[in-house]
Amino acid sequence: MSIRAAIVGPTGYTGEWLIELLLGHPAAALTYLASARAELPNIAEIFPRFQSRCEIQCRPVDHAAIAAEADVVFLALPHKAAMEHAPGLLDAGLKVVDLSADYRLRDADRYEAVYQTAHEDRANLDHAVYGLPELFREQIAGARLVANPGCYPTAAALGIAPLLRKRLVRSAGIVINAASGVTGAGRSPKPHLQYAELDDSFYAYACGDHRHQPEIEQTLTDLAGETVETLFVPHLLPVDRGILETIYLELADEKTSEDELFEAFEQAYDDEPFVRVRADLPNIKHVRDTNFCDVTVRLVQRGDRRHVVVLAAEDNMIKGASGQAIQNMNLLFGQEETAGLL
Amino acid sequence: MSIRAAIVGPTGYTGEWLIELLLGHPAAALTYLASARAELPNIAEIFPRFQSRCEIQCRPVDHAAIAAEADVVFLALPHKAAMEHAPGLLDAGLKVVDLSADYRLRDADRYEAVYQTAHEDRANLDHAVYGLPELFREQIAGARLVANPGCYPTAAALGIAPLLRKRLVRSAGIVINAASGVTGAGRSPKPHLQYAELDDSFYAYACGDHRHQPEIEQTLTDLAGETVETLFVPHLLPVDRGILETIYLELADEKTSEDELFEAFEQAYDDEPFVRVRADLPNIKHVRDTNFCDVTVRLVQRGDRRHVVVLAAEDNMIKGASGQAIQNMNLLFGQEETAGLL
Amino acid sequence: MSIRAAIVGPTGYTGEWLIELLLGHPAAALTYLASARAELPNIAEIFPRFQSRCEIQCRPVDHAAIAAEADVVFLALPHKAAMEHAPGLLDAGLKVVDLSADYRLRDADRYEAVYQTAHEDRANLDHAVYGLPELFREQIAGARLVANPGCYPTAAALGIAPLLRKRLVRSAGIVINAASGVTGAGRSPKPHLQYAELDDSFYAYACGDHRHQPEIEQTLTDLAGETVETLFVPHLLPVDRGILETIYLELADEKTSEDELFEAFEQAYDDEPFVRVRADLPNIKHVRDTNFCDVTVRLVQRGDRRHVVVLAAEDNMIKGASGQAIQNMNLLFGQEETAGLL
Amino acid sequence: MSIRAAIVGPTGYTGEWLIELLLGHPAAALTYLASARAELPNIAEIFPRFQSRCEIQCRPVDHAAIAAEADVVFLALPHKAAMEHAPGLLDAGLKVVDLSADYRLRDADRYEAVYQTAHEDRANLDHAVYGLPELFREQIAGARLVANPGCYPTAAALGIAPLLRKRLVRSAGIVINAASGVTGAGRSPKPHLQYAELDDSFYAYACGDHRHQPEIEQTLTDLAGETVETLFVPHLLPVDRGILETIYLELADEKTSEDELFEAFEQAYDDEPFVRVRADLPNIKHVRDTNFCDVTVRLVQRGDRRHVVVLAAEDNMIKGASGQAIQNMNLLFGQEETAGLL
Repeated sequence: MSIRAAIVGPTGYTGEWLIELLLGHPAAALTYLASARAELPNIAEIFPRFQSRCEIQCRPVDHAAIAAEADVVFLALPHKAAMEHAPGLLDAGLKVVDLSADYRLRDADRYEAVYQTAHEDRANLDHAVYGLPELFREQIAGARLVANPGCYPTAAALGIAPLLRKRLVRSAGIVINAASGVTGAGRSPKPHLQYAELDDSFYAYACGDHRHQPEIEQTLTDLAGETVETLFVPHLLPVDRGILETIYLELADEKTSEDELFEAFEQAYDDEPFVRVRADLPNIKHVRDTNFCDVTVRLVQRGDRRHVVVLAAEDNMIKGASGQAIQNMNLLFGQEETAGLL
Repeated sequence: MSIRAAIVGPTGYTGEWLIELLLGHPAAALTYLASARAELPNIAEIFPRFQSRCEIQCRPVDHAAIAAEADVVFLALPHKAAMEHAPGLLDAGLKVVDLSADYRLRDADRYEAVYQTAHEDRANLDHAVYGLPELFREQIAGARLVANPGCYPTAAALGIAPLLRKRLVRSAGIVINAASGVTGAGRSPKPHLQYAELDDSFYAYACGDHRHQPEIEQTLTDLAGETVETLFVPHLLPVDRGILETIYLELADEKTSEDELFEAFEQAYDDEPFVRVRADLPNIKHVRDTNFCDVTVRLVQRGDRRHVVVLAAEDNMIKGASGQAIQNMNLLFGQEETAGLL
Repeated sequence: MSIRAAIVGPTGYTGEWLIELLLGHPAAALTYLASARAELPNIAEIFPRFQSRCEIQCRPVDHAAIAAEADVVFLALPHKAAMEHAPGLLDAGLKVVDLSADYRLRDADRYEAVYQTAHEDRANLDHAVYGLPELFREQIAGARLVANPGCYPTAAALGIAPLLRKRLVRSAGIVINAASGVTGAGRSPKPHLQYAELDDSFYAYACGDHRHQPEIEQTLTDLAGETVETLFVPHLLPVDRGILETIYLELADEKTSEDELFEAFEQAYDDEPFVRVRADLPNIKHVRDTNFCDVTVRLVQRGDRRHVVVLAAEDNMIKGASGQAIQNMNLLFGQEETAGLL
Repeated sequence: MSIRAAIVGPTGYTGEWLIELLLGHPAAALTYLASARAELPNIAEIFPRFQSRCEIQCRPVDHAAIAAEADVVFLALPHKAAMEHAPGLLDAGLKVVDLSADYRLRDADRYEAVYQTAHEDRANLDHAVYGLPELFREQIAGARLVANPGCYPTAAALGIAPLLRKRLVRSAGIVINAASGVTGAGRSPKPHLQYAELDDSFYAYACGDHRHQPEIEQTLTDLAGETVETLFVPHLLPVDRGILETIYLELADEKTSEDELFEAFEQAYDDEPFVRVRADLPNIKHVRDTNFCDVTVRLVQRGDRRHVVVLAAEDNMIKGASGQAIQNMNLLFGQEETAGLL
């Protein structure tokens, strides 16, 4: 069996990487590229790298037409645009993997406060599943609508989960210092994303105020069984791809050793194909173009304080977006979870 | 009057920028370049950018010869090499600005533990002055030997001083998350500093174990009047120059407002020519090639916790090294402190 | 005497570097920033690096008001916009240095063909002087309107002039292979100038069809005393600043030696403060942030063919734009030509 | 059947990419990594990206042991080292794909002149086949020793072959202006390859004197049936990977049109899976991480001269080295030529 896959919004960076990964997938075929553009391009005009490899003509976003040719559809759209299409596509019988933020926050009111827009599809929000396979694999397998996690929240959740689930760290006072390559900001031209502005630059933005902060907290709250609030401070790297998070936590029990922390990671991820527990410190270069999230943990004593430092690296376009979406597709259709991703 | 300046070790990056700044200095002249190399190069062979601007032939490290032609000497040397030369140069009557770590830690035993080598010049260590003008201006003016601060410690001290001196933050639990461009690692070829290794990379190193951590703590302890220990986690940026530090602190009094924190910065730096208190978030690009340190502060409430976040940016080669050395020279000789630096 | 300088269009990259250079100029003061923006910004909001150094409020483009406060005005505008303002500013008594293309081509018809727009100011075109000091110094000194050369044409003219004037190379068959950093394309956001598009990229564009080609040919024709046509092939570098041109020429007399070619360069540029004849091969890094153009020449025999290869490097923002404009200002006002530029 | 593959010298960049490509190959297995290092590392220590994907322990370079476990061996060695091992490995019954320069030049005397070392294995040189499949596919299929082409020569040959074979261009006066990413210079640390030296840089090197020039000429001479000499001028890009060549040629017959030139490319490469004839201008970014060579041609009239400009882009590590080596392996073993490469 081959999974027939469609993409709505294939002309952005997540669309590009969905195509790239589907081209190499042994059990999936790309059948439909749906674009809302007035002039529908051939995708190889948008991404010249696809010449001779994927010269598919984009077609209108016609839910029935998509359903006639596909089993699953990826929404590679901005938030708001995604929930305009999800209901129709679900009704047409498709499974939907949404890469936008529209179905990630279970609480619609919180969504509305964070994204400053009304949630137009609370009905489907109720059964949407948060698509982080390492934490919610079972729910994903049976879902019809998967909310693919944000890039920053993926690394944060994978980096904190082993410690929080075992109560090795406190649920309060978590600080997530993150840095991302610029593809995370999308493909629409913006002044601050021009090469000459970003070259030689590095700075923090949205300090304590980023939209991914509530998404991170939702997952951590699920894991801890109590309300978790974090301080999330993202930075913009002069790099196209990659996220590194340096996470500062407090020990729950001062007697815990670094070895115990490390073992918690190994236990959590020993059987996980896409999370690598490293002895050395993760580097975004070592996960570039892969679906891996590399993690490690250190315990540092300074005076009376014992600081837990977790480091987590991923490719924001792969494990942080399109690769994870393919991983979710594999789960939805009972394929080997690693198919097309190793 | 023109200050006659010499450099020992001009073929590294700090040497390069000392030369660049001295070439543009209105009241100083570069008179002697001293190198320990077997074949003494013309400096324009080492740095082709100096062709037609500074074609000085390097000469041996001869203390008497240097003293005959210079009033001040900059030691642009690795640690250990600096303290081999400082005594002779001081005895010859020169003022010395040492850019290495050899005279930064007042406690020789701590130096020996951190740098894993004996301190060979405890006599001069006793009267060396830590050359961070914004904090120790008076002592510098009368010094004979100035220990020019490390790059990371400069930004850390300037970012934390206004809050710590006024006891607005606790002296415990300070976390300094830092990122530096690669010139900070020096000019000797190393495998991990090759272009193809660093391009597309970003990672933490020396987590909680960097040699600048004790130097930072010494300054903060001076400011706080009690022992301060910090967690310092540096990262390597795929950029040639620039340091950004994102510093996490705890409020001493939960009722303090963000405005009060900001005012502390403005009061501390209103009259400082090289520290800019920003309303926006600092960017290493905006301080590139300058002697500025840009700083700001934010107060973020998350649940019960109120996090103080300080951001500080500098050019690691200028304010973090050679620019600050010139600033110290200006103080030593009663020049306008900004001469040659604005 | 201090030259009072105004800038029309200070919010682009050439404006930024004019400001930077004027701030360091010993005999000029920046008095008026004129912008056509609806909301007139403080220039330090546009370029955060100017905070505390140049916090000038932009004002309307009012010719009389500018003339009341300035002696010279720089037009840092796109082509077409410049010739809308030049007549009024000249009439108001100002000297004008135009960084756009509007007054570079002496033949208005050619201008109209190349730039696909009517030339609206043929009257002033007649007395405009092409501002390449190394070739046309005398004319510039007495000019009222200086057409500041394009970035590519500056390096091309300086690289070819010594050989062409002495008839050491043929005027036919000149191939100019050029590569530029991205600031040459301006500061307006464009999709292909986004960081994530340019990173890891390198490509030719406008092959044989670039607007600078006729400008290069005009200068070379002046120098040769006969019509010169060249093939000009620019490439875009993943770098913010710098131009390198690799120029292929044919010997006029097969017996000419490499030494004779090199001597022609030395004779031409021995007294020029801003052209450095190098023994080694020029590198854009060595001219970065300077007003230098570094040049050299090689003669390579391959089979029966003897190829002349000229290499020329400059900073496209300095010698290729704003630095050269300051150099022209110095000439216009009888200042030392190097004032503010070394 | 699965091809068992060994690599001698797996710790450099070509070794890294051979491993990467073999890991994804459907009909080949990596069985032996042979290193001359005194301490034999696990390859995942050298390249942390291979953790959990390829944790093979390096073993000594023992020809018999390699032959016992492999069918083919890749020599990812510097020149000179390769010909020390090739004879023994061939004698042990292995097929050999040599990525060094040792068997590329058929004329051993020329090799010795160019590489300044004696050729120690003239016996095997006689039957070595130059491994550029698009030009020499038949010979490769039956070879025992394949000399994998240099990175620059691959793009040059593919860019020029369609025109030269059809005599559409003259065999004289060919100028190849090339630019390469820095992995082409290897993985050994060198001062000029440090990040801080290469960042913001661009320059020509080995002008008319590069070792790849004779290799290019050998292939072009084969194609033309007469001696071809070219001028080859390489430049170093501040990019890790990618080669762009901008090639200037002269028409053989002035009446030839651009369409005819373009058709020659289409005819030559219509059935080639790895050469893409583009309508737009090639970009190294569009071939990154692929085995494609993208080519196009332009005809530009300037005055009396009609210039042919060919543009060719490849990933120097893939089509310019390890990818082409895999392509050769596929041919040697009768596999689908594209196996593991699309």
